[in-house]
Amino acid sequence: MPELRKDPVVGRWVIMATERSRRPSDFSKAREERKGGPCVFCPGMEHLTPPEVLSYREPGTEANQPGWRVRGVPNKFPALRIEGDAGRRGDGLYDLMNGIGAHEVMIDSPDHDRGMADLEVRQIEEILWAYRDRVLDLQRDERFRYVIIFKNHGAEAGASLEHPHSQLIALPILPLSVQAELRGASDYYRLKERCIFCDIVFQESGDRRRVIFENSGFIVASPYAARFPFELWIVPKVHASHFEHATVPEYRDFAQALKASLGALKSALDDPPFNYIIHSAPIGEPRSKHYHWHAEITPALTKVAGFEVGTGFYINPVPPEAAATHLREVLNGSASTAADGAVKAATNANGLTS
Amino acid sequence: MPELRKDPVVGRWVIMATERSRRPSDFSKAREERKGGPCVFCPGMEHLTPPEVLSYREPGTEANQPGWRVRGVPNKFPALRIEGDAGRRGDGLYDLMNGIGAHEVMIDSPDHDRGMADLEVRQIEEILWAYRDRVLDLQRDERFRYVIIFKNHGAEAGASLEHPHSQLIALPILPLSVQAELRGASDYYRLKERCIFCDIVFQESGDRRRVIFENSGFIVASPYAARFPFELWIVPKVHASHFEHATVPEYRDFAQALKASLGALKSALDDPPFNYIIHSAPIGEPRSKHYHWHAEITPALTKVAGFEVGTGFYINPVPPEAAATHLREVLNGSASTAADGAVKAATNANGLTS
Repeated sequence: MPELRKDPVVGRWVIMATERSRRPSDFSKAREERKGGPCVFCPGMEHLTPPEVLSYREPGTEANQPGWRVRGVPNKFPALRIEGDAGRRGDGLYDLMNGIGAHEVMIDSPDHDRGMADLEVRQIEEILWAYRDRVLDLQRDERFRYVIIFKNHGAEAGASLEHPHSQLIALPILPLSVQAELRGASDYYRLKERCIFCDIVFQESGDRRRVIFENSGFIVASPYAARFPFELWIVPKVHASHFEHATVPEYRDFAQALKASLGALKSALDDPPFNYIIHSAPIGEPRSKHYHWHAEITPALTKVAGFEVGTGFYINPVPPEAAATHLREVLNGSASTAADGAVKAATNANGLTS
Repeated sequence: MPELRKDPVVGRWVIMATERSRRPSDFSKAREERKGGPCVFCPGMEHLTPPEVLSYREPGTEANQPGWRVRGVPNKFPALRIEGDAGRRGDGLYDLMNGIGAHEVMIDSPDHDRGMADLEVRQIEEILWAYRDRVLDLQRDERFRYVIIFKNHGAEAGASLEHPHSQLIALPILPLSVQAELRGASDYYRLKERCIFCDIVFQESGDRRRVIFENSGFIVASPYAARFPFELWIVPKVHASHFEHATVPEYRDFAQALKASLGALKSALDDPPFNYIIHSAPIGEPRSKHYHWHAEITPALTKVAGFEVGTGFYINPVPPEAAATHLREVLNGSASTAADGAVKAATNANGLTS
């Protein structure tokens, strides 16, 4: 059973894969075997994954057979185990618990070669509904406090399988960044009696310099203090704390905003590796006036130096205003794609090498 | 002038290189030019760096000439500018200030080919004294609140020049991780009336499972909630909040511990890329009972996924007990070096790919 261990100083939880090895040299042969061979996420290969927990499929087709449009399966190599109780306990001054949780894969579509930017809006909408369905199911499990929904696109961003997919991790704890966001938003609310994200939406809507896209439900902007070149946030314009409580038109608008964002990045930067993470209030908690769900897309153009991870202090060589100007031009069709130039620039301009 | 911008939700400061480019495609040609050609950090090439701010050199040799053993110079491509005032101001709900600060390079030794693990203890000791001298000089500048001292070793860890060197960045703000550590340590002190790092030293000294090295002044252990495989912390055994207040024997012991740590990593993992960061209390502040300086070494064996950066939630496939067992064996000469095996294992076992 993996363990969840807490850093005693800053309160960061880490999954420690204690059972996988006793020695650094006998690791994860299973993981290596997955390289090569047929794609386990393609239609016809359903028997190579654990049985599906969700699928949206054509009428008359059966579970774990082709005919699905979106398919959710448990991760074959989960970082956490679904069985057991939390077993919270101490080890001297340290805190740990059993590494319980759910680790699922959402296969975006049957098409091996089309990334999310290339899907139709209605297909992306279905992926969002699939996320939602899984969150609502996972939150019935009272051991879980948070579900992280994210996508790694491209090897440089941590994707080990090419076939487009997303991941969900249900956790019995709150990740450090979620704690920090909740605290920050709550402090601001106490001071101002307003949601900080609502204030951000208001200011960005007026300012426009960092906005690249907007529809009736969402605004897409490169954040004021972007850590990474071409970082984008997709924020609902109407206050809402939980992703899973969105409405039909909201999911449609979010799907459209996601497609526009990923499409702009793909055109401007030659299909860059990226991650997105949906930031939402803890599952099962009441709707909150101070927290506001949103998605953060971070292209992996620069190497994240250990320095930056270690200090939480970033150097961004591309101001969000410049990134937004360029992405707007791409979306409006008025720019030739900077592609190589921009990628190389961002990569070389990582300010912390010397 | 670069800007320091603050994320309004979590309080993270980011250096925004606003002046370097107006468009993503016209970046940093200057940085590219540094590739190829003679090494600018080697003896005889002193004219290729800005004039030195520090050197420990042989008697009779002159500044900016060969004869130095350690040499500190301003970074030729600084992330921050030394001139000007902080100019703290608002931009609607956002906070920003001028990107003032110092960004210096410490050239570890004249030898292009010997990494820190290969230097003599007395050479490492001199590097530490050089760090200290620079901190004491920089703290006289009242605009600065913190000096980050760090090393990137290997291209994968962000080093763009091969010649072994460290960096110092003096900042007018506190990095997010420093804020979090100070808050965590202070909360613990209020609860227990003890320093949390002293408690960690006490528990690790008794437990031994995660300890790889110890001398009269320092203990080296892989931390209980290590984020990364083979992460190591070097912690002074006697409470002290500031690196720059250490004594002659303490710097000697720290140099010895640093050499042992880096030597063990080099032997065990075939000269892995790594970063180290010295965590110390803010410069110029009174000695603190609750904060305890230390160094954190993080080998860059696994890719840090955007997921982990985005959530502050890590998966570590090598428990610190296993890493420590192996490193102890390497230090005691009782292990064949796992080298390839361990690196490959750690790389493949990054639990967040699916």
